[in-house]
Amino acid sequence: MTTEFALLHARGAARRGRLLTAHGAIDTPAFMPVGTAATVKAMLPESVAVTGAQIVLGNTYHLMLRPGADRIERLGGLHRFMNWSGPILTDSGGFQVMSLAKLRQIDENGVDFQSHIDGSRQRLTSESSIEIQRQLGADISMSFDECTPFPATHAEAAASMRLSMRWAERGKRAFAARPGHGLFGIVQGSVYEDLRLESARTLTDIGFDGYAIGGLAVGEGQAAMFRVLDSTVPALPADRPRYLMGVGRPADIVGAVLRGIDLFDCVMPTRAGRTAQAFTWRGELNLRNARHRDDPRPLSESCACPACSSYSRAYLHHLIRSDEILGAMLLTWHNLHFYQDVMRGLRGAIEAGTLDDWSVSFGEQQAKGDIDPL
Amino acid sequence: MTTEFALLHARGAARRGRLLTAHGAIDTPAFMPVGTAATVKAMLPESVAVTGAQIVLGNTYHLMLRPGADRIERLGGLHRFMNWSGPILTDSGGFQVMSLAKLRQIDENGVDFQSHIDGSRQRLTSESSIEIQRQLGADISMSFDECTPFPATHAEAAASMRLSMRWAERGKRAFAARPGHGLFGIVQGSVYEDLRLESARTLTDIGFDGYAIGGLAVGEGQAAMFRVLDSTVPALPADRPRYLMGVGRPADIVGAVLRGIDLFDCVMPTRAGRTAQAFTWRGELNLRNARHRDDPRPLSESCACPACSSYSRAYLHHLIRSDEILGAMLLTWHNLHFYQDVMRGLRGAIEAGTLDDWSVSFGEQQAKGDIDPL
Repeated sequence: MTTEFALLHARGAARRGRLLTAHGAIDTPAFMPVGTAATVKAMLPESVAVTGAQIVLGNTYHLMLRPGADRIERLGGLHRFMNWSGPILTDSGGFQVMSLAKLRQIDENGVDFQSHIDGSRQRLTSESSIEIQRQLGADISMSFDECTPFPATHAEAAASMRLSMRWAERGKRAFAARPGHGLFGIVQGSVYEDLRLESARTLTDIGFDGYAIGGLAVGEGQAAMFRVLDSTVPALPADRPRYLMGVGRPADIVGAVLRGIDLFDCVMPTRAGRTAQAFTWRGELNLRNARHRDDPRPLSESCACPACSSYSRAYLHHLIRSDEILGAMLLTWHNLHFYQDVMRGLRGAIEAGTLDDWSVSFGEQQAKGDIDPL
Repeated sequence: MTTEFALLHARGAARRGRLLTAHGAIDTPAFMPVGTAATVKAMLPESVAVTGAQIVLGNTYHLMLRPGADRIERLGGLHRFMNWSGPILTDSGGFQVMSLAKLRQIDENGVDFQSHIDGSRQRLTSESSIEIQRQLGADISMSFDECTPFPATHAEAAASMRLSMRWAERGKRAFAARPGHGLFGIVQGSVYEDLRLESARTLTDIGFDGYAIGGLAVGEGQAAMFRVLDSTVPALPADRPRYLMGVGRPADIVGAVLRGIDLFDCVMPTRAGRTAQAFTWRGELNLRNARHRDDPRPLSESCACPACSSYSRAYLHHLIRSDEILGAMLLTWHNLHFYQDVMRGLRGAIEAGTLDDWSVSFGEQQAKGDIDPL
C-alpha cells in the first residue's frame, strides 16, 4: 500500500474510515472541494480548511494547459503553488478532455486534442497523465480513462470500458510507488451491470490503492446511479477507499454513503455559490429571488459559516443583484461549509449507529423546502 | 462638536491626530477604503480591518438606488447590513450624480437625474442627501455639492462653488446633531485660488465638524492639486480634520499629508486589485505581465499581507490569466494593506519628527521601480 486506509466503523454498507496520505489524514466519508485551476474558486485555502475540508481536488487537464505541469513542478509542486498543505487528489484529465477539449482523436495509447484555452495541439496518454500528476505532486492520482458518453449502447460502453481498463493497467505500471502517494483505478461500464462488474474485477486484479466509480452523474438520473452502486460497490475490495466521481447534490451523497462510498467531489457547491444558489438543510434556494430583499434572517439559522453568522438574506440578495464578488465569496463559503456539515453528520451517524434514522430525517428536512417568506 | 478631533502631533503642516466617532476612533492621517455598494469589493469586512483600516466609505448615490436607504434603515443601518462595526463616512452623492447618472437637471434645490441602474427618475437635494446619510447611519456625513466639471472657466467654477455653498448651508440646517456623528463641508472652486479661499471662508463661517477638499483628482494633475492644497489648507480651521476627497496614488497621499491633509479615500487600491495592478514600495506593477509567470518570489518582500506571505508572483499571475476570483481577492487585499502600510509609515514619521526624510526615501523607493526580473 502506498496510501493507507483504516476502516473504523461499518454499519450496513456504510463505512467510517480514515485515509492516510503524505499530506495528512482524511476522515471518510469525505467531500473534496474542487480546485480546478489551483484554486477553489472564490475561496482562500485557509477558509477551505475552516469549512472542515481535509482534501481538495485539482484538475490535470486544466493545470497541464495553464500554467503547465513543468512550471508547477519547477515552482515546488501544486501544494506550495496554491498554498494548500493538506492532501490533494488530481483527476486524470480524461473527463475534461471529453467535455472541454476540441478535435479529440482517441487511439489505443491516449487522446490527441486541442486546448480550449489557446487552440494548441495537446496529447494525453495513460502514461503521461500519471507523469503529470506526479509533477503536480498529487497525494492521490487517478488512472487515465475514457469518459464513456451517455447514453451509450452496450457495445459502445464495453469497448470504451475495456480501453480504459488497458489504460488503467498501463498507468499502474507507470506509477512510481512512494510512501503516502496512491493510485486509484476507475470503474467504467455506463449503466450496464455486467460491464461494471467486469471493470471492477479487472481493476481489482491489477490492484489499486482505491477504486473510483466514474461515468455517473452524466444524465442517467439518481435511480440509475444508485442501481449501479448497488451492484458495483459489493464487487470492490472492502479494505480500499471507494470514490464516486463528480457526485453530487447532498441527497446523492447521502444515498451513496448508505451504499458504501467513502469519497466524493463535485463542482456543485462552488459553482452554485457563484450563481446565487444555496444548499441548506431545508433544500436549495436562490438568493437572487426578490422575496429575500427585505429579509433580515440568516440564510440558515443552524449554520455556523460567515455568511450565516454575520449577514442577512437581504444583504446576500443585494450583493448578488449588484454583481459583487463578496456575494460569490460568501455563498461559496456557505455551500462548502454545508457540504462539510453533511459529511460531519454522516460520519457522526455512522459512528453512533444511527445512520438510517439520520438519513430519513435528512430527506424529510430537505423535502420541507425553505423557511416561510416573511 | 459632534465628532471630536484631537491633534496629537504637528510637524510643519503635517498632523498626527485622532478622530472620535460613534463607532470608534480613527488615527490620522488615515486612508478610507471605498465600500461603494455596502462592500469593499472582493474583501470580507474582517479582512479590511486586518489591513489596519479603521473607517470605510459608503456611497450615498449607489445605496439610495440599490438596495435603497429606506430598506437599509429598516434592516438596522449600514453598519449592521454590511457587517462593519467601525466608523463609516458616506459621501453626499454629488460626485456620482455627475459622473454616473443620466439626464441630469440641476436647479437651486438639487438635482433631478435618471438612475444608471434601472433608468428610474430620482432626485437628490441638499436636504435629502443629509436625510439619506442619516438613514444609512453614517458616522460622518458629507454636504451635498455640485462636482464642478474640469476644466471650468473662472465664472463657471464660481457659480458652481457658490451653489454648493448654499447647499452646504442648507444641509447644515438639516443635519441633526447627535453624539459621535459629524457633518463635513466641502471646499470647491476648481483650480482658482480666490474661489477656493472664498469657499473655505464660507464653510468656516457656517461651521462644520470637518472640512473636505473636493473637485480635485479630476484631471488637473498632481502639481495643480498640490498648488490648491498649498493655498487652501492654511485657510481651514487647524482644530478640525481635513479630508482630500478621491485621492489618490500613494505619492499623492504623501504629498497631501505634507500639506496638512488628515483623511483620504480612493477606489484606486481596490479597483487596481481587480485589474492585476499592484502598489508596492518599489512603485506599481502589473501581475498580468508574462515576466512574472515563472517567478517564485513574493509580490513584495517587505509586505505582511496574505498575497505576499503565502503566494508567488507566478501564482498571482496564473490566477489573473485564468480570471480567477482569488486573484482579485489577493491583489485587493495586498493593495489595501500597502495603502495602510503607507499610512502607518506616515503616522510613525510624524510622531518621530522624521517625516521629511521619510517622504524623500519613499519617493526614491517608488522611483526605483520593481525588483529585477528573474
